[in-house]
Amino acid sequence: MDDLKTRIRNIADFPEPGITFKDITPLLQSPESMRQAVELLAAPYRNQQLTAVAAMEARGFIFGALVAAVLDVGFIPLRKPGKLPYHTHKVDFQLEYGHTSLEIHTDAVMQGDNILVVDDVLATGGTARASCELIEQLSGKVISCAFLVEINALNGRLQLADRQIHSVIQC
Amino acid sequence: MDDLKTRIRNIADFPEPGITFKDITPLLQSPESMRQAVELLAAPYRNQQLTAVAAMEARGFIFGALVAAVLDVGFIPLRKPGKLPYHTHKVDFQLEYGHTSLEIHTDAVMQGDNILVVDDVLATGGTARASCELIEQLSGKVISCAFLVEINALNGRLQLADRQIHSVIQC
Repeated sequence: MDDLKTRIRNIADFPEPGITFKDITPLLQSPESMRQAVELLAAPYRNQQLTAVAAMEARGFIFGALVAAVLDVGFIPLRKPGKLPYHTHKVDFQLEYGHTSLEIHTDAVMQGDNILVVDDVLATGGTARASCELIEQLSGKVISCAFLVEINALNGRLQLADRQIHSVIQC
Repeated sequence: MDDLKTRIRNIADFPEPGITFKDITPLLQSPESMRQAVELLAAPYRNQQLTAVAAMEARGFIFGALVAAVLDVGFIPLRKPGKLPYHTHKVDFQLEYGHTSLEIHTDAVMQGDNILVVDDVLATGGTARASCELIEQLSGKVISCAFLVEINALNGRLQLADRQIHSVIQC
């Protein structure tokens, strides 16, 4: 685990003063570390009858697509407004630094689907919570949320209420 | 190949009137088709001594990360301005519908690196060309550009000059 942690770079005051950004690009440069990270993200879900992995653009697409491939399930992209071309459903939510919305294709989730939400970083939890709400509003079930990095000090878990959470690295 | 093609949905007049958008989300829903698509994208590069795969956000991250994993090389994210947190290098370029910029981390490419550029769709070629220029300006070598879908009518190949191009689906 220490090896993975050393590949997450702290960037002070990005994107705004007072915020320390977790830069995952050094991890992306190492195929060995990436394989390990994706295996650890996916491990708890090997026998959970998942239907799909959902992830938020843009960095979430990297880990979401890789976890979906390892678990042999479909991938659902969650996107910023105006990016998905078909019929969409939308939620508005509060971010660590600002306010935004998230969209999903209405044909991406069907009643009874078991979805895993994946993202690189759990910060304040706003994005993950909005992702879960999008899926649940389309009658899908969120089995769990999996994160590569959880920033403990920001208490993102509180936003996710009683949903199951898995994080590979805590800091 | 026909199977993959049927999983690309045409959306008329998106994002602007007169443009037909290639929607890859039906393909993303099928793990079998995704595995096939990624295998076909990666196949020509199995013995090419690649250093890394580079891809543009957001949809490019999906296929770029998967091709990098299959080829066992690193992944370099290319992003819209202001998204990469470390030292960046930037190019401005013309899009099918508008004008934008693309950034890369300056420590993402080193002299002598052999890079494969991956994207989901080759349309007018502006994004792919800018991606190649970013890498070459940092003294990396672009070995080839690989696309899941090439829209022949838009002549994107012309933008990529004499660079090698591989496309899985032509339409």
